[in-house]
Amino acid sequence: MELYTDAHWMGEALKQAKIAFEEGEIPVGAVMVCRNRIIAKAYNQTEKLTDVTAHAEILALTAASNALGAKYLPECKLYVTLEPCVMCAGACFWAQLGELHFAASDPQRGYNTISQPLLHPKTKVFQGLMETDATRLLNDFFKNLRN
Amino acid sequence: MELYTDAHWMGEALKQAKIAFEEGEIPVGAVMVCRNRIIAKAYNQTEKLTDVTAHAEILALTAASNALGAKYLPECKLYVTLEPCVMCAGACFWAQLGELHFAASDPQRGYNTISQPLLHPKTKVFQGLMETDATRLLNDFFKNLRN
Repeated sequence: MELYTDAHWMGEALKQAKIAFEEGEIPVGAVMVCRNRIIAKAYNQTEKLTDVTAHAEILALTAASNALGAKYLPECKLYVTLEPCVMCAGACFWAQLGELHFAASDPQRGYNTISQPLLHPKTKVFQGLMETDATRLLNDFFKNLRN
Repeated sequence: MELYTDAHWMGEALKQAKIAFEEGEIPVGAVMVCRNRIIAKAYNQTEKLTDVTAHAEILALTAASNALGAKYLPECKLYVTLEPCVMCAGACFWAQLGELHFAASDPQRGYNTISQPLLHPKTKVFQGLMETDATRLLNDFFKNLRN
């Protein structure tokens, strides 16, 4: 079995973000990887579902638990194109997520705006991979929105 | 139309918590009230749904938005039997919830363990109503679990 790199998985998350973009949603995408396999893909659907909780990460966590039949995801790696918000960080905490990889930072609403740790102490965090692509997509979205 | 008191609505939330208890879930219940009417009821279903995001508050927010066809809930009041966690407080933030009423405090995992404000600045908070009943239900649940 081919072992994929983090860049491969983040590329898959970016594809999800692009689907969100095409559908008029704030373009954030996520994939959940378990043992070198994608077990869940999701993109932000807050508009389509009329539901502020329908962030890519929440949908990916729910789908991943469904796929594995397990509430806790210590062997899973979440790749998401934007730094999770407080809500999503809280969800990752409860899931005892193994690894969190995010591309762009979110200085306004990212969980790192909170000085206390919100993630589970066992969750390893990696950030910045494909940040430029993820940020460009978000900037294009908000530029279109203003025009 | 009869105007119900906060105690009435919290009593309804407690009924939801009791259903959770009967079903072997951590007993937390919630109702969402809009213009003197319940538009959503929910109880914690993390076990049944194998989903750590299936807290009573998240389910109630999603159901309320579905009922109203609106993402934002500034005219809604959430009654929940336990202080929301960080994830649920983050969800209440995004929904721009009008009022949050909670019964028991959660010194371990409640959002007030975080020193920065997590709720929307416009959300009014009320706490302590029917705290004894809500706490007793939780204590009974964990006592049974240990035995």
